[in-house]
Amino acid sequence: MENQWETLQAWKDHMAKELDTVISFWTDYSHDQEYGGSFSCLSRNGKLYDELKYLLPLGKQVGMYCRLYRTVERFRRAELLGAAKPGGEFLIRFARVEPPAKKCAFSVTKDGTPVKVQRTLFSESYYTLAMNERWRVTEETRYQNEAVEMLDRIVYWVRVDSSELSWTRFSRTHKAEDLAVPTMLLHLVDQLQEEDEEMSKKYAELEDWGVQRILKHLQEWKAVLDNISEDGQGLPGAFGREQNPGQAIEAGRYLLQDAQREGDTQLRDQVIDKFLLLPFHSGWDAEHGGFYSFRDVDNWVPHRVEWSARLWWPHCEVMVAFLMGYSETGDPALLKIFIQVSEYSFRQFRDLVYREWYGYLIEDGRVGLSIKGGLYKGCYYNPQCMAMCEQILGALLQRTEDSK
Amino acid sequence: MENQWETLQAWKDHMAKELDTVISFWTDYSHDQEYGGSFSCLSRNGKLYDELKYLLPLGKQVGMYCRLYRTVERFRRAELLGAAKPGGEFLIRFARVEPPAKKCAFSVTKDGTPVKVQRTLFSESYYTLAMNERWRVTEETRYQNEAVEMLDRIVYWVRVDSSELSWTRFSRTHKAEDLAVPTMLLHLVDQLQEEDEEMSKKYAELEDWGVQRILKHLQEWKAVLDNISEDGQGLPGAFGREQNPGQAIEAGRYLLQDAQREGDTQLRDQVIDKFLLLPFHSGWDAEHGGFYSFRDVDNWVPHRVEWSARLWWPHCEVMVAFLMGYSETGDPALLKIFIQVSEYSFRQFRDLVYREWYGYLIEDGRVGLSIKGGLYKGCYYNPQCMAMCEQILGALLQRTEDSK
Repeated sequence: MENQWETLQAWKDHMAKELDTVISFWTDYSHDQEYGGSFSCLSRNGKLYDELKYLLPLGKQVGMYCRLYRTVERFRRAELLGAAKPGGEFLIRFARVEPPAKKCAFSVTKDGTPVKVQRTLFSESYYTLAMNERWRVTEETRYQNEAVEMLDRIVYWVRVDSSELSWTRFSRTHKAEDLAVPTMLLHLVDQLQEEDEEMSKKYAELEDWGVQRILKHLQEWKAVLDNISEDGQGLPGAFGREQNPGQAIEAGRYLLQDAQREGDTQLRDQVIDKFLLLPFHSGWDAEHGGFYSFRDVDNWVPHRVEWSARLWWPHCEVMVAFLMGYSETGDPALLKIFIQVSEYSFRQFRDLVYREWYGYLIEDGRVGLSIKGGLYKGCYYNPQCMAMCEQILGALLQRTEDSK
Repeated sequence: MENQWETLQAWKDHMAKELDTVISFWTDYSHDQEYGGSFSCLSRNGKLYDELKYLLPLGKQVGMYCRLYRTVERFRRAELLGAAKPGGEFLIRFARVEPPAKKCAFSVTKDGTPVKVQRTLFSESYYTLAMNERWRVTEETRYQNEAVEMLDRIVYWVRVDSSELSWTRFSRTHKAEDLAVPTMLLHLVDQLQEEDEEMSKKYAELEDWGVQRILKHLQEWKAVLDNISEDGQGLPGAFGREQNPGQAIEAGRYLLQDAQREGDTQLRDQVIDKFLLLPFHSGWDAEHGGFYSFRDVDNWVPHRVEWSARLWWPHCEVMVAFLMGYSETGDPALLKIFIQVSEYSFRQFRDLVYREWYGYLIEDGRVGLSIKGGLYKGCYYNPQCMAMCEQILGALLQRTEDSK
């Protein structure tokens, strides 16, 4: 017992220190003082290698700064709010390609001219996240209006008509659902519902829908598949056999939060079994350590060139999910996996010289890409992981104290 | 001199044997006897891991079979024609998503229902190649009509209006030209013009256009950049600094063929200097051997996860281009590079147990992906390389004989 207390305390300290270190990298190097917002394309030592602004990491960073500012005492600093405010303003002014239409760019120039547009809904999703967080910090209504309007539009694209995303130009083609889509929606619902009764009511049905859609990706109780048909069936070919263990566990984490809120222990146990442990065992490389990016459910070699790469974000999601699972159940097997993955991640992804985490390792753990940020990676998955782990570990330690 | 003759003879034999071996892999495992055409998703030992038909490798294989059948005596076999005929028929019937519109699918089910569509013109380009080759074998006019109509549509998309590809939905976004696009067009022009006076006239202006567009990718005489603006200027950010050495050398090969046809030795020398040697030196990894997939012109770390991967196709294009350059100039430095790259490729990419080539190695030369075919790789780049090298080496040896 004493020994376990020390373990939890040690990891809480690691998480807190690492969170401070990572955030200091972004406050030192990423802010755009001229036009507002921030740059994500930072080299290993924080040099700017691309002045374009990528909307996914920009929305994530605004959201992360606001959340830290309002929920972690030591981050209630003018520096963070001072960057998040013009960041939110930049998004409102320049994220949408042809306002008032809601479709957002994937990238814009530093002063806001659109450069690229993707046929996805992720720029819009992190826009929503940033707007809702921005509203929570200063309660300016227009930010919350932006968040709600954008989420409603995203829901319309996913559930009613996706033609604005060019998903349905060719009506005869198969439609597939990527697990990332219902996971993203459940994430946004969680975000907007947080301590907000009105939003909890408004999005209750969407929450149920998201949970049910994610559960459909568990096929024949034996694997969480990344792509299924719109009516919940398996898809043909290698695409249909694809497993993305990190994505499955991220989805599992949102299901777990849902089960926790609803007090549904049956769902909780099912999620831990099928959305945490199952993808963990199919995704973890026992020989080299670390998570594969893709696995084929029938054990063919995945057709993607990056299949064996170790990406930072699945490791972050796995840490949070297993610690959350342990916190909910007290099962020491889940704590053991949390520690195993945390040890690997802190050892392999962290840059002890220039701070922040590498995003991409090759199979044997060597650094494959030394940049600290890019088109997708920004100030998000690892600080979010550390902040959540610090908070959960703190609560666990408090619980241990209280029960003494 | 004697020593060089032996070198050329040895490599001609290697190329011929390897061509036979590779083609035997595809004739053994890839044909679909039921619906016609062929499958590209073959595992290391030739097992089918995905029954979808991918239109790029399918068009390439039909074209390759026809070309070998009509130009290489030992491949004038019923087996090849017997597969190419229903393959061509399958393409005519099922490649287009909504006929009579020309847009083709990226993948279809084995019996021809469209599954995915890409916003590119490469399915259509290899459709054109397959149709023209199919026509050359049996002179059935409808195949040539298909080829010409499709090429004219592709040219319309590239030069007049790309909205059918969804390239211009967002009118305010920057437009970029990928070097692969004019290279593909010049390739198709070469294909249709081959020993065809009518087509040579019809596409003479397009040929000039393609050459000029490719030359614009050489920026400030110091690097061939993969992406430039529509008006030939550099683009901002990491995307604008991207070099794809294999793509540059492939473009160089088509320029070289053009210079050869026109007897333009000034263009020839410029191309060898700037489109062969320059990308060779920026792309070759002197430490481990092999070509990087991407380099940044200002030596930043490229932002793509696969930047350091060794792909089979650039190595194939480099072999052809440098042997062609040597054949045109007699410069022994070009022959030396041909041999250097051929030795690396035959050593690292070839599977001596199950035949065919791996498509993807990691930096140190180990196999990263053991499949022999997939969504893009099929029966194309390596057999094309071997057939062309065998032919050029044969001509060089003949020239040596004649001059004795």
